[in-house]
Amino acid sequence: MDHQDDENLQTEEVHVSSHDHAPYVHRVRSPPRQNLFKEFQSTLKETLFADDPLRSFKDQPMSRKFILGAEAIFPILNWGRTYNLAKFRGDIIAGLTIASLCIPQDIGYAKLANLSPQYGLYSSFVPPLVYAVMGSSRDIAIGPVAVVSLLLGSSLQNEIDPVNAAEYRRLAFTATFFAGITQAALGVFRLGFLIDFLSHAATVGFMGGAAITISLQQLKGFLGIKKLTKKTDIVSVMNSVFSSAHHGWNWQTICIGGSVLAFLLFTKYIGKKDKKLFWIPAIAPLISVVLSTSLVYLTRADKQGVEIVRHIEKGINPSSVHEIYFTGDYLRKGFRIGIVAGMIVLTEATAIGRTFASLKDYQIDGNKEMVALGAMNVVGSMTSCYVATGSFSRSAVNYMAGCQTSISNIVMSFVVFLTLKFITPLFKYTPNTVISSIIISAVISLLDIKAAVLIWKIDKFDFVACMGAFFGVVFCSVEIGLLIAVCISFAKILLQVTRPRTATLGNIPSTTVYRNIQQYPEATKVSGILIVRVDSAIYFSNSNYVKERILRWLMDEEEKSTEGYRTRIQFLVVDMSPVSDIDTSGIHAFEELHTSLEKRDVQLVVSNPGWVVIEKLQASSFVNKIGEDKMFVTVADAVAHCSPKVKVAEEASFNSNTLSNLL
Amino acid sequence: MDHQDDENLQTEEVHVSSHDHAPYVHRVRSPPRQNLFKEFQSTLKETLFADDPLRSFKDQPMSRKFILGAEAIFPILNWGRTYNLAKFRGDIIAGLTIASLCIPQDIGYAKLANLSPQYGLYSSFVPPLVYAVMGSSRDIAIGPVAVVSLLLGSSLQNEIDPVNAAEYRRLAFTATFFAGITQAALGVFRLGFLIDFLSHAATVGFMGGAAITISLQQLKGFLGIKKLTKKTDIVSVMNSVFSSAHHGWNWQTICIGGSVLAFLLFTKYIGKKDKKLFWIPAIAPLISVVLSTSLVYLTRADKQGVEIVRHIEKGINPSSVHEIYFTGDYLRKGFRIGIVAGMIVLTEATAIGRTFASLKDYQIDGNKEMVALGAMNVVGSMTSCYVATGSFSRSAVNYMAGCQTSISNIVMSFVVFLTLKFITPLFKYTPNTVISSIIISAVISLLDIKAAVLIWKIDKFDFVACMGAFFGVVFCSVEIGLLIAVCISFAKILLQVTRPRTATLGNIPSTTVYRNIQQYPEATKVSGILIVRVDSAIYFSNSNYVKERILRWLMDEEEKSTEGYRTRIQFLVVDMSPVSDIDTSGIHAFEELHTSLEKRDVQLVVSNPGWVVIEKLQASSFVNKIGEDKMFVTVADAVAHCSPKVKVAEEASFNSNTLSNLL
Repeated sequence: MDHQDDENLQTEEVHVSSHDHAPYVHRVRSPPRQNLFKEFQSTLKETLFADDPLRSFKDQPMSRKFILGAEAIFPILNWGRTYNLAKFRGDIIAGLTIASLCIPQDIGYAKLANLSPQYGLYSSFVPPLVYAVMGSSRDIAIGPVAVVSLLLGSSLQNEIDPVNAAEYRRLAFTATFFAGITQAALGVFRLGFLIDFLSHAATVGFMGGAAITISLQQLKGFLGIKKLTKKTDIVSVMNSVFSSAHHGWNWQTICIGGSVLAFLLFTKYIGKKDKKLFWIPAIAPLISVVLSTSLVYLTRADKQGVEIVRHIEKGINPSSVHEIYFTGDYLRKGFRIGIVAGMIVLTEATAIGRTFASLKDYQIDGNKEMVALGAMNVVGSMTSCYVATGSFSRSAVNYMAGCQTSISNIVMSFVVFLTLKFITPLFKYTPNTVISSIIISAVISLLDIKAAVLIWKIDKFDFVACMGAFFGVVFCSVEIGLLIAVCISFAKILLQVTRPRTATLGNIPSTTVYRNIQQYPEATKVSGILIVRVDSAIYFSNSNYVKERILRWLMDEEEKSTEGYRTRIQFLVVDMSPVSDIDTSGIHAFEELHTSLEKRDVQLVVSNPGWVVIEKLQASSFVNKIGEDKMFVTVADAVAHCSPKVKVAEEASFNSNTLSNLL
Repeated sequence: MDHQDDENLQTEEVHVSSHDHAPYVHRVRSPPRQNLFKEFQSTLKETLFADDPLRSFKDQPMSRKFILGAEAIFPILNWGRTYNLAKFRGDIIAGLTIASLCIPQDIGYAKLANLSPQYGLYSSFVPPLVYAVMGSSRDIAIGPVAVVSLLLGSSLQNEIDPVNAAEYRRLAFTATFFAGITQAALGVFRLGFLIDFLSHAATVGFMGGAAITISLQQLKGFLGIKKLTKKTDIVSVMNSVFSSAHHGWNWQTICIGGSVLAFLLFTKYIGKKDKKLFWIPAIAPLISVVLSTSLVYLTRADKQGVEIVRHIEKGINPSSVHEIYFTGDYLRKGFRIGIVAGMIVLTEATAIGRTFASLKDYQIDGNKEMVALGAMNVVGSMTSCYVATGSFSRSAVNYMAGCQTSISNIVMSFVVFLTLKFITPLFKYTPNTVISSIIISAVISLLDIKAAVLIWKIDKFDFVACMGAFFGVVFCSVEIGLLIAVCISFAKILLQVTRPRTATLGNIPSTTVYRNIQQYPEATKVSGILIVRVDSAIYFSNSNYVKERILRWLMDEEEKSTEGYRTRIQFLVVDMSPVSDIDTSGIHAFEELHTSLEKRDVQLVVSNPGWVVIEKLQASSFVNKIGEDKMFVTVADAVAHCSPKVKVAEEASFNSNTLSNLL
């Protein structure tokens, strides 16, 4: 990059480059050459350790490092030291509130996963304890959630009929185990960014679809239907529901369920109206359960065909270490289901963690969080729990009830423990229709129409992803919907890198600023110079497109200039400000562009190549090919260089006679 | 975006926005709202019709459109009208040269595909004729090529043992048929950009690996080994070769092969030394064949164990329409193999087309070219040909021999026709070892070490892709190598969109230009203002990273400012010049960033959002949230706005005594 190198410059060029020493013209800088190892190290760091997790460990004595390490794995050691009674008051109220919300939900969610009710309660006992000591979110409420229960139930029953309860349960624990391992592995290997590949839009659609599907599943309990199809798509379910209409529905059931649902939705409405009354919808489900259970017990409505829960195992979680499949065909199946469930769970949990962290302005390390969630599910799988995660609705209640730390999870867990130990037999007469109503009213808020409308307004492609996921879940199955969502998300990424935007720039009057002519109609083109900006890194996937698109801009411009007798384009300035990187294919394309331009007698000029780009252009000796003095820090500099050299067209003036006179 | 909207601005802000009317400050423009259909149309056009293929059809009468349409499908109708004797002279010489090169190569390549020798010649007869009338490249030489023959052979023998010659052949035709259909479909649906996903680097590695594998396969003929393993990886082949050493090798064979190889490499060297002597390596193979065949015929060396070709069917291509599998299991297999082969063939053919088009400066429509190649292979599959494409080496010879149009392909085709009709029986005594030597000397140039070194110099990640493909092919199989190449290429794209670069900017002295501080060490930071540039579109895949990275820049800066008692950062300017697009996740991330910054009492300011970005920021009402007057056309404007408002820290001066005195 030294000035002495330019020996084969023509005199004309030398004249110009002499004004490089003028104070206003700066040269394009390239970075000092890094050695390979350092380069690799910094790339790796930015990719995997973007959040610089070891920052606080730097320059600390060994003992301090050990303490910091322990605190990193068990954040409770850190915040536990400053825990006090005031905080505990907040946590105990929040914990009791979410406990009252989770107990009836757990019973229903376990059914979604085709498991006996107590497994839902088990999953609200052990995992919250593990999370409380390892997790870093202060607001998340841990336990089974609707969507994952549905996903797990539908994936598992594809493999084993839930009638084989023991085997089915074993597979569920296996899937839970591997979901935990997947989560922990993603965290440990710092691959947490992988879950970012499910876009927000796709998630909205997926959740909405899941809400519909879950509600449809509840029709069985809600209407008192004896036998419902195993399929989850809307067509099969509605068919099955209506074909059972004339002999399967039970009016007493519908009465109880309907009034409970109306009650729950009304309390929800109240809670929305006045945020201070959030506790009303939070305890409404438990009240419904207590009242309806008493009612059924007193009237013996179960003899009239009202389905009741019948039996929940009393006592806390039994060990399930030996039930996990570590060999055979089911290992593979559990592994596969676990990976998918584990990833979905992470998407939900990290979204919750981020939302509440930004509300209270504290930091969450996504990867550490994954390790905590993973550990919690691994422990859970050994203590008869199925996949647990953070529940959005319960976390919101937790937050509003004034939780301070994850102690609220411990409080909830303790309440669940008491329930399991003493109260479960009392649920015997709880009608299934009430559980169904509770689930419907819980999942209905997953159907986020406002978000979908906003997505439509902002980005049409995102909306396609959203609807694809939604209809995929509703009309096919949860898995298909998920697949559609992921595929559309990837298609979008690929489209982005294949067809980057380009723009022609013009000078904004009375400034040295050059901007997109389409965006700023006041910007004026410079005579004889075409300025094109490429809005993306130039990689193999778009290098040819970029080259051809630039040539097409040139052709468009040339057509116009022949029509209007304007000055021929003699310089093509490529503004590389947005080009963050270029690879060998990209450089090839630029070499071809240079060849084509030479044939047309157009000079290629580059403005503002970044750090990485200039380094690679030099390494490939492309800089030498087009001339080092054709690289400028700004478009303005480039134009200042080129403009005096533009040969103005012989004025083929208004009067064509002038031309013919000359001839 | 109207000025009257800003009613809820604070007085302080109003004061500032009043200077928006000063001549030097322009407002960020947003585009006029397009209707949905137009937006969709323009996106579709840019994605699929980026090259505007219908440009010449515009405003033409119907009859003219018809002619233009016919010319588009059969370019020969266009250039044929200006064809003359001078051009024909060039074409006939070029055609004869490539014919002499292709005949011996075809025989060998057919063997690579486990087919009888005549199928190679068939494939040099029909496809070039079809291409000549439909293709738009003037320099490409059509016929079977080494890499695709190898790929086809190795894929096909995984399905059917080549010993079942008839069935094997039928599957080969089926694969060829579907390769053609794939190519034509990609062209018709304008999805040609899909082949860009195999990066240049990966291709270099893949080709190099294929060259090694093909050469290893030739050891059988070269050493006169009777039986070689079917596997193509280097370990198996070398094992097999050495285990046959003590009884399998034949010294007469090695003598003939060795001398021919030496002769061929020597002529290659001559051709490289003096470009004018390009014809010497071009006709050397045919000379070798003629000489060695005569020698074997005269000495009856075949009785000494020198393997000879033995039998080539005389006569031109029989029909194979009824041999293609249109039903059953083999349909599926042929389909799968055909798709892969068709795509690989396209990669090679379009690369050749582009290279020579840029050398002679004419345009090639990639998608039209694909239709031509597809049609040629479909017709080929019905006339006993296997997959044909453009050969790089023969195209280069064609170019150097002075070809003018694709008539040279017709000339070549005619020579092959004569050969099939009359001369094939004479090949009976051609020793296999000579064919092997010819192939080795042909594929050796695919091993492009110079390109690999350049890739290493330019981009280390590309080099990994290159080596991955190379070792994958050499140590496993062609398919595995290909898979590795594609996977690494995709991983690179994903990495790019997950971890975009960011930079902090500083003012370059005595300009209004702001540049990356790392690249331009002379750039100075502005006190109290942090300027961060994001170098990529902000999508779901990177939105969280971008948000966290920006916060980390802020934290780094704040740490420094506490250490040095410098002015606290009060404004964060995000330069969005390189941000070509943003989606709902991206906007979410910015909203979270805004919330976090508010908590820290830092004001978010945006500079130079592009066309699409400002539109979406408005649609999501993010603009209203941070204030419309916080959007600036340039960083300089943003700094000019913020700088006067920065509250300078109370001068905690050099002398810390001053501080303690004050306390």
